[in-house]
Amino acid sequence: MDLEIVIVGNELLLGFTNDTNIGEVARALIPVGARVVRCTTVGDNRTDIRQAVGAALDRTGFVVVSGGLGPTSDDITRESVAEELGLALTVDRAVLEDIEARFARYRPGPMPPSNRKQAEVPAGADVLANAHGSAPGLWIPSDRGTAVLLPGVPREFRALTAEHLVPRLRAMAVDGSVITTKTLRTTGISESALADDLADVLGTIRGVEIAFLPTLEGVDLRITAHGARADSRRSIESAEAQLRPVLGRHCYATGEGDLAAVVLERLRSLGARLAVAESCTGGLIGARLTEIPGASSVFLGGMVTYADETKVRDLGVDPAILARDGAVSEATVRAMVAGVSDRFGARAAIAVTGIAGPHGGTEDKPVGTVCFAAMWEGAVESMKRHIPGSRYDVRRRAAQAAMDLLRRMLPE
Amino acid sequence: MDLEIVIVGNELLLGFTNDTNIGEVARALIPVGARVVRCTTVGDNRTDIRQAVGAALDRTGFVVVSGGLGPTSDDITRESVAEELGLALTVDRAVLEDIEARFARYRPGPMPPSNRKQAEVPAGADVLANAHGSAPGLWIPSDRGTAVLLPGVPREFRALTAEHLVPRLRAMAVDGSVITTKTLRTTGISESALADDLADVLGTIRGVEIAFLPTLEGVDLRITAHGARADSRRSIESAEAQLRPVLGRHCYATGEGDLAAVVLERLRSLGARLAVAESCTGGLIGARLTEIPGASSVFLGGMVTYADETKVRDLGVDPAILARDGAVSEATVRAMVAGVSDRFGARAAIAVTGIAGPHGGTEDKPVGTVCFAAMWEGAVESMKRHIPGSRYDVRRRAAQAAMDLLRRMLPE
Repeated sequence: MDLEIVIVGNELLLGFTNDTNIGEVARALIPVGARVVRCTTVGDNRTDIRQAVGAALDRTGFVVVSGGLGPTSDDITRESVAEELGLALTVDRAVLEDIEARFARYRPGPMPPSNRKQAEVPAGADVLANAHGSAPGLWIPSDRGTAVLLPGVPREFRALTAEHLVPRLRAMAVDGSVITTKTLRTTGISESALADDLADVLGTIRGVEIAFLPTLEGVDLRITAHGARADSRRSIESAEAQLRPVLGRHCYATGEGDLAAVVLERLRSLGARLAVAESCTGGLIGARLTEIPGASSVFLGGMVTYADETKVRDLGVDPAILARDGAVSEATVRAMVAGVSDRFGARAAIAVTGIAGPHGGTEDKPVGTVCFAAMWEGAVESMKRHIPGSRYDVRRRAAQAAMDLLRRMLPE
Repeated sequence: MDLEIVIVGNELLLGFTNDTNIGEVARALIPVGARVVRCTTVGDNRTDIRQAVGAALDRTGFVVVSGGLGPTSDDITRESVAEELGLALTVDRAVLEDIEARFARYRPGPMPPSNRKQAEVPAGADVLANAHGSAPGLWIPSDRGTAVLLPGVPREFRALTAEHLVPRLRAMAVDGSVITTKTLRTTGISESALADDLADVLGTIRGVEIAFLPTLEGVDLRITAHGARADSRRSIESAEAQLRPVLGRHCYATGEGDLAAVVLERLRSLGARLAVAESCTGGLIGARLTEIPGASSVFLGGMVTYADETKVRDLGVDPAILARDGAVSEATVRAMVAGVSDRFGARAAIAVTGIAGPHGGTEDKPVGTVCFAAMWEGAVESMKRHIPGSRYDVRRRAAQAAMDLLRRMLPE
């Protein structure tokens, strides 16, 4: 099944925002065998929205429209599409009550009248509930095909795609040919080193495509197969079986698995709890860990010891070590990991200290110099690395490397 | 001057890559007064490329095409556009020599014949030199308008936009008409409340467009004017002067200003230092603050007290308060802010505790209940809020609201 996307928003045409919804919906639709064949981005302009949606429907009979469902006067997608399809808009009582209830829950006072138009529904349309914002999605059948209207805010778009669009399209799919993919996530090895290690194996793998996708967290390997679902699954399993021995412990998860979740889960199964001492990452590791629901059963807490004085006072780092080796050194980071595990009474701990830049680098310790330590049941390992990239990159790569150092120490 | 963009590439329609070239070219064209009115993304498919480029030219007379200029068999933009415009392709000797010289510099052996097609130029076209890759850009005048073909690799696209497209369009601009924008960033007020507060003023503002852009950090107001630069600046200044009194302290920055940077800068000018105690945000506030280069001169550090026991042991929260009011209460968060400012010897401090979800909510304290406190020179303010959204949203909104509470307490 082929379909088109229409993205509505002046901010995209002015370059203030880069769209991510096209990629979001395209990836989500691959497993149900639907294919995005064209995307059109237009401004908040009635004529352009009508023309783009109408042309997309006339070409493929199915269009997903993102954006322009908010309460303000520049949000005109709902009206424009209804007009193009010749459908009347009426206020849906149930939707209005939802919006009013949502409003009352979060704010005192009466609902502003501008929110009311979010309850307007074209004749014959289904309302797609949105638990993540005030604008529901709309599934609009018509003589010219189906238009699906989703809010443009990326997290709402993603949620409604997963909760409504994908299940409905899966139910419609008839042809058994699909694109199947599986991703193996690695960290602690560069893309070129991975390519060299895998060169021999890649020459013998058949029936799938393998792509290298470098990110700040490491390098993902995406295995893709086309065809009947069962055949594709078999080809992917066979490729994975050949890749795994070469990847070894560099591979930490499959799919969208997050290293923070892997570390928490491993510690949970070991009945152990974790504490973190952060200097240059300033809270990023804690933030990554606590992004995972249920982190509180493993993660005790941490110290952000950004200033040297707090490393001494709160983590018990010996001032003589700081004076001799400096704040960015393996001696300091080992003292930090010992200090934070003592303070929190944790069986596992992580510590990081480094120079994220753009200032603060020296000849000996240039920007990007980061020292890591991890502690598991009293045993400490540490390392010093030079991490490339901007302040943003260095901090994220350092957070990932710190968690990975602990992961590799834990019993399987 | 209005123009359109056509992006060519299967990768984008499969969701493996998010486009950034649209934003790149849109931002680059604003200062020369050219406006992107529509973007079409198509796959590596001759029919779709021809149709998209032809329709764009028929609507605006000027189209920028990104991608499909490489040496492989799926790179067919050059041929497709020449065919659509009825122009013959011939090998340009000078381009071919450049490609051969470039090839010889980086690789041994003869050049593969597939690279030869990168030297093909449509009749009447100008070659746009590309020092960053093997495919040159093309500037193709025709009866139907001008098509500019640029390589899709973001680095090459950006360079050729700056080196060729922008100067040529600037030279073409006759009326001095440009697009000028200014953004006012607000937080602590909802989009619909802001729209209502501004309704009267918006009715009287002339000569500019005002867009509401909600994010997890608040609502940005973007003021846009079209016309001669001096006139646009005056219109924007006048609009800002009318908006500012209504926005009041909700407005914390202009442009891309970050609340974390605003808070750090305010404290730096006051000669004060900051400490943070985080529970449900788990390190996000520290991470936001330390994203700013130079944060170390203001930010002392913080405690991530995720487990209750650490709130007592490390921040000195009275266990009786926890027992009576619970960990998510104004009494607890006030004790946390006092504890962390004492421990770090900070004149300013922030504390947050809440239920980010998806689990842990109760009838009394549903998911999204968050308590905040800020301390400035011994004075403490606190508040309790119910924040909508997912765990991800609640945590980010809470981090922003906590920093904002402190900002509003600081002397101007």
